[in-house]
Amino acid sequence: MAIVKNEKITSRDVDFAQWYTDIVKQAHLAYYTSVKGCMVVEPYAFAIWENIKNVLDKMFKESGHENLYMPMFIPESLLNKEAEHVEGFAPEVAWVTHGGKNKLEERLCVRPTSETLFCDYYSNIVKSYRDLPKLYNQWCSVVRWEKTTRPFLRTREFLWQEGHTVHETAKEAEEETFKMMNVYKKLFEEYLAIPVITGKKTEKEKFAGAEYTLSLEAMMYDGVSLQSATSHYFGQKFSVPFDMKFVDRNNKWQYVYQTSWGCSTRIIGSLIMVHGDDNGLVLPPKIAPKQVVVISIRNDEKVLSAVQSISKALSDKGLRVCTDTSDKSAGFKFAEYEMKGLPVRIEIGPRDIENKQVVLVRRDNGQKYTVSIDEVDNKVCELLEDIQHCMYEKALKHTQERTYTCTTLDEVKNIMYSKPGFIKAMWCGDPECELKMKEIRGMKSRCIPFEEEHISDHCIVCGKKAKHMLYWGIQY
Amino acid sequence: MAIVKNEKITSRDVDFAQWYTDIVKQAHLAYYTSVKGCMVVEPYAFAIWENIKNVLDKMFKESGHENLYMPMFIPESLLNKEAEHVEGFAPEVAWVTHGGKNKLEERLCVRPTSETLFCDYYSNIVKSYRDLPKLYNQWCSVVRWEKTTRPFLRTREFLWQEGHTVHETAKEAEEETFKMMNVYKKLFEEYLAIPVITGKKTEKEKFAGAEYTLSLEAMMYDGVSLQSATSHYFGQKFSVPFDMKFVDRNNKWQYVYQTSWGCSTRIIGSLIMVHGDDNGLVLPPKIAPKQVVVISIRNDEKVLSAVQSISKALSDKGLRVCTDTSDKSAGFKFAEYEMKGLPVRIEIGPRDIENKQVVLVRRDNGQKYTVSIDEVDNKVCELLEDIQHCMYEKALKHTQERTYTCTTLDEVKNIMYSKPGFIKAMWCGDPECELKMKEIRGMKSRCIPFEEEHISDHCIVCGKKAKHMLYWGIQY
Repeated sequence: MAIVKNEKITSRDVDFAQWYTDIVKQAHLAYYTSVKGCMVVEPYAFAIWENIKNVLDKMFKESGHENLYMPMFIPESLLNKEAEHVEGFAPEVAWVTHGGKNKLEERLCVRPTSETLFCDYYSNIVKSYRDLPKLYNQWCSVVRWEKTTRPFLRTREFLWQEGHTVHETAKEAEEETFKMMNVYKKLFEEYLAIPVITGKKTEKEKFAGAEYTLSLEAMMYDGVSLQSATSHYFGQKFSVPFDMKFVDRNNKWQYVYQTSWGCSTRIIGSLIMVHGDDNGLVLPPKIAPKQVVVISIRNDEKVLSAVQSISKALSDKGLRVCTDTSDKSAGFKFAEYEMKGLPVRIEIGPRDIENKQVVLVRRDNGQKYTVSIDEVDNKVCELLEDIQHCMYEKALKHTQERTYTCTTLDEVKNIMYSKPGFIKAMWCGDPECELKMKEIRGMKSRCIPFEEEHISDHCIVCGKKAKHMLYWGIQY
Repeated sequence: MAIVKNEKITSRDVDFAQWYTDIVKQAHLAYYTSVKGCMVVEPYAFAIWENIKNVLDKMFKESGHENLYMPMFIPESLLNKEAEHVEGFAPEVAWVTHGGKNKLEERLCVRPTSETLFCDYYSNIVKSYRDLPKLYNQWCSVVRWEKTTRPFLRTREFLWQEGHTVHETAKEAEEETFKMMNVYKKLFEEYLAIPVITGKKTEKEKFAGAEYTLSLEAMMYDGVSLQSATSHYFGQKFSVPFDMKFVDRNNKWQYVYQTSWGCSTRIIGSLIMVHGDDNGLVLPPKIAPKQVVVISIRNDEKVLSAVQSISKALSDKGLRVCTDTSDKSAGFKFAEYEMKGLPVRIEIGPRDIENKQVVLVRRDNGQKYTVSIDEVDNKVCELLEDIQHCMYEKALKHTQERTYTCTTLDEVKNIMYSKPGFIKAMWCGDPECELKMKEIRGMKSRCIPFEEEHISDHCIVCGKKAKHMLYWGIQY
């Protein structure tokens, strides 16, 4: 199927970074106003985020979590309570120093993440094992004063959710940490059609203040990795400095065990970079704000009436449908909905009406189908299911093709400077070897996968006895 | 029906302010942590807010509005562009002066409202009449550096929505201003069971920078008024300084016409103060997080199985149901769900099982019903509808009883120092007379209602020729 290249965007194989920027602009996803490093999440991107949010929020609630809302400000003294945490975040926080004309007695930072606020709250409301677990989440924005920014991938303010839970035992808290990582995995695989690798971060790459961090890594079209969700186990690292104590079943004081987990609008970046092509976005049906557009080719009365009745039939099936009966040219309309990545487009012209048929076009592979008007609704449902499936399979094939098993640094270099991707290699456990690996195009360890393979007995960097198999890659 | 008074809260007729604080605490609605003037919106209050949000968001979308997300920071120079606006807000904004260790080149304020950001955005994306109208809304938090704070009513940070629209003509923009006020009216009357007065604010009381402001005023149990939603018509007051121009149908440059409208978590304060009683919250069924609780009186197998099957039958009807089969005493359980204001409670004990019946208790008036198990689901649906209706009627009766028509200041004084409420009185249009009225317990004009009555020919304050009938009252 020959698809005409959209001239408004750079080809992704020519300049991937420019292609990304072009799509963000042309599909009206984000806009930089005069607030430096912060962006407007435009309505179309926000609608995608709302759909992601609805899927996750439902899964959170089904697993017993409740939403609440915490203040956006953290007093400096509160942020300072856990040493590793403040060291990790203080260099990149925004400080509020004045309220109106008055200087504040104590500086407040705008939350970069809310562990300290939740700790403060939990230390007040949890008194007994009967009060546990507390399984709370919030949807909000956070601020990190980044120097270089890119829409969705790295902005000074971004939208996210952060779950924070406290538990009676380490076992329960660790189970929560893994359970929530699986919720994210389900979102990515089943809804976003994005294959992922999940595993444990190394000590060097874990969250500031965590015992350990689990992460979800996805490979973009250019072979670069995007860390797209994390889940942290804190043990009692915050509960001691924040005095989060409870009376246990034996009537003794204990400190709670804690987790936190989050994902952000960065996910929109991964949707763009995993599925998008030279004609714009390609959205998986389950998450697309509109799944089908019904387009009139010429606006005579019969065509318009068919557009209406078909659109109604599809809405009645529970699909998200829009119509375009504007007087723009057919080609212009096609390009517009391709840019926005709508999974299926239906074209109806006067000749179609005569033949009691319509043309359906898939966004993912451009395939066309001529279908009798009576069968449109069933065919569209069938196509949407197939598109969701094919998008996942295509992305999986791409990830697999660019995942390499290596035993020498030369192999790694050859790959990373030609066709980068994930490198599977053994590692001794020494952070020095991670630093050494970083010399190759800034590569970092992605994670120790939950199911490690045995590739060799030796660390790929130093040759000493290997402890783990790691995924490595360049990251956004 | 004799209801036993809950001892954990002060009686509302003894000390209304303390009663309010007690409910906020005992029903776990809000919590002050160490962040001064900011509160945690606890899960139960947040669930109420989510229900309010869902109702409004649906109405917004049905009327063609889209959600987006704007940055939380406003550069000082941007805030300063509209003179009246900055004068109104600058004294109460929080200023960010540092990012990490570096002093910012320009101070940023944390948004107290986002007119200036939307103006900046619209001035960039609107070029032609074909781009109009833009009907955007955002759900977010805003910050106003208040000196004295009260949970939900006045906090330094609060959750709200703010709609911002731009239009081709003044007529369209004015229609939008009124239409959105009616959306709020519908929320209050049909969902929150709160009767309201809507009208236009006087010049003195309008929003900083608006041509005029419409407001929605509700009377609390103590006769004090709560301004609960506003809708502003800006005309071209912002579009000139922000250069929001478009090419019109005659190919000429024009400035857009603009509106904004918002409501906040303050609504939760009005739910508490309109409907609550000496046993806690009383929530209208349409907005209650849980509409029914099924409580076991003793936990034998038959009782537990009946609790489960009744709860399932009610869920299948689409109701929001929870169960309590804990081993706490029945009285303790009753008090707990009364405190949380659940509309209907179902009590099931061993004797009820024998008689194939259960007891239903209404929260709004304490009335009890013995109902055959087969009829529970229908009876509950019927009760919920009746409760929603009766709560509105009760609040309406209260508002009407405490709305007074006055022609002399002595009458006003007598009323406001004994049993305050809304005063209907004539006004000449002079802000000086509003200031004079303020000497009576800080009363302010609430609004000029859309349908004015003719009470007399003379201003109640100065005796000069009257221009309008005003609602007056003390405010939160």
